[in-house]
Amino acid sequence: MNTALVIGTGLIGTSVALALAGRGVRVHLEDQDTERVRTAAALGAGTEDPVEGPVDLAVVAVPPAYISAAVADVQRRKAARACIDVGSVKGGPRREVEALGCDPTTYLGTHPMAGRERSGPLAAGADLFEGRPWVLTPTAETDTEVLNLALELVAVCGAVPVVMDADAHDRAVALVSHTPQLLSSLVAARLEAADETAVRLCGQGIRDVTRIAASDPAMWIDILSANPGPVADILAAVADDLETTVRALRALQSADETERAGGAAGIEDVLRRGNNGRARIPGKHGQTPAVYETVAVLISDRPGELARIFADAGRAGVNIEDVRIEHATAQQAGHVQLMVEPSVAPVLAAALRERGWTIRQQ
Amino acid sequence: MNTALVIGTGLIGTSVALALAGRGVRVHLEDQDTERVRTAAALGAGTEDPVEGPVDLAVVAVPPAYISAAVADVQRRKAARACIDVGSVKGGPRREVEALGCDPTTYLGTHPMAGRERSGPLAAGADLFEGRPWVLTPTAETDTEVLNLALELVAVCGAVPVVMDADAHDRAVALVSHTPQLLSSLVAARLEAADETAVRLCGQGIRDVTRIAASDPAMWIDILSANPGPVADILAAVADDLETTVRALRALQSADETERAGGAAGIEDVLRRGNNGRARIPGKHGQTPAVYETVAVLISDRPGELARIFADAGRAGVNIEDVRIEHATAQQAGHVQLMVEPSVAPVLAAALRERGWTIRQQ
Repeated sequence: MNTALVIGTGLIGTSVALALAGRGVRVHLEDQDTERVRTAAALGAGTEDPVEGPVDLAVVAVPPAYISAAVADVQRRKAARACIDVGSVKGGPRREVEALGCDPTTYLGTHPMAGRERSGPLAAGADLFEGRPWVLTPTAETDTEVLNLALELVAVCGAVPVVMDADAHDRAVALVSHTPQLLSSLVAARLEAADETAVRLCGQGIRDVTRIAASDPAMWIDILSANPGPVADILAAVADDLETTVRALRALQSADETERAGGAAGIEDVLRRGNNGRARIPGKHGQTPAVYETVAVLISDRPGELARIFADAGRAGVNIEDVRIEHATAQQAGHVQLMVEPSVAPVLAAALRERGWTIRQQ
Repeated sequence: MNTALVIGTGLIGTSVALALAGRGVRVHLEDQDTERVRTAAALGAGTEDPVEGPVDLAVVAVPPAYISAAVADVQRRKAARACIDVGSVKGGPRREVEALGCDPTTYLGTHPMAGRERSGPLAAGADLFEGRPWVLTPTAETDTEVLNLALELVAVCGAVPVVMDADAHDRAVALVSHTPQLLSSLVAARLEAADETAVRLCGQGIRDVTRIAASDPAMWIDILSANPGPVADILAAVADDLETTVRALRALQSADETERAGGAAGIEDVLRRGNNGRARIPGKHGQTPAVYETVAVLISDRPGELARIFADAGRAGVNIEDVRIEHATAQQAGHVQLMVEPSVAPVLAAALRERGWTIRQQ
């Protein structure tokens, strides 16, 4: 690939352009917003010069509702030999592209599974897609050369290609991304009118469950508006489970022992199914979920404490797989949980103890 | 306080006993399970010798369903001058204690907001409660001396006392702990039968939302069985919101533009209320939520990479407030997000760049 056109210089478009430009591809940038395109160009993402003759690959990086029009426009003005989009839903845009009479052989719907809390070209980076899944949704009509250009782009971005059917993709992201977002928001919404004292009791559990409830509503309205059906279907199933759960809790209040036992069984079922579902989420690097051992170290809030821990762990030759800082709610001290391979946990604990750290017994 | 009796040598009881013993208090340990009490004693949590004459404070650390019987037994055999429990629900046990005709002046219900994924005495530590809220539920009848003994225990454990009404406590934990647990399980349960390809697309959002879905069902059945009413009430409110959300999503599928606009408004309402609720969760050390700046650093998976980052941050004199490792799903590389005070973010980014790190633009 020698030349490309990126339409839409937001977070995703600018990141794609930066990755391509970094590999020497001549990238043309287009955006309705002249300010944004100028910023992206200034960051080194490409040129504002208009396209002359068809480029190798056009990348449409606009909100889902505008994808089909942008694809049709690229084809109409013969701006590129191949055209992909990078929107977060795939079924609707594909059907709209077909309805507009576009050539289905040179268009391919794709979705890089990457994002950030911040948006716009200034938040972009060539490494945004590093190690992330990048879904490609070719059909029987898709030209092999077009698929290969997309695979080349995915490789340039350091992402991992995953081939899926467009509608299967939309059901999958409804399940693993859109549903968790809405349920996180629904749990957080319960805190809106809560007593101050209740809010003080928030621990790490609710913090984790509601982290993504801080997301930008405007972006999520765009995404959910493009995928309402699959999300509604999954939420309806969650609503059924929730109703069963409420009934089980009410049964636990019963004077009748058999009813109470039934309630407990219902609650246990929800919790066990949750265990099973959680266990399916892949661990780091897409392997089967690794069961790490946790070594919890007591730290003060002095600068450099974490540095010292990691330096001491490094000296012990131990690779830290994950880190979690427990947020104590009112004191200048807390625990750092270091997740490591079970075999090296005793080594790490001993090494840190020797260097004066207080380790919580495991 | 010179003498204490801890009844129940699980995670919480043994941790309390270790904290007291560490301050020179003579702690007697009791448990139905002789194996467990022997382990706790071997860890230095106290003695298995029977209590002779009343101790200063008895701490009942048994599952909610057994609290009232244990309190009544302590009072009957005059084992302690004051008796508190440390169970995770407070209203039911208090009413049962009253129903058993116990002396309400020397009993106080409390709840340290601390826990772990692991249970039993081997998981215990004197520092388990460090910086955590510890709820006390005195009534008009509670003897001041009993309240002061409890406050002394909370101080010994390094926890932060919070006084609440017993039923208000149960509603609060239903909101900030029990409801998030069940909804995390319900989201995770949807993955149980999901396609393998869909599961591969799991990102950090669903990982965070479902982290606590890995919790032990048996422990949660105990907790929920003791607090079914308040949890059911909140889940019913979530179910109402969820029904509204499903209706809003269905409206987004409508051919009618007004209906679609109504759907979008409904979704926006859920997301904004989620924003508001999330913003109420206190930040580290119980302050108003700090808005940290994130500095994202690209790392390889070599041992010692984190150590080097933290050492370099330490040399720059920057205090890291929180750390998050982004789990790339299929590659041997990823980002470490370092959360710092906004004022020092540029300092940190510059210092790390100078030392050869790749920083994602913010």
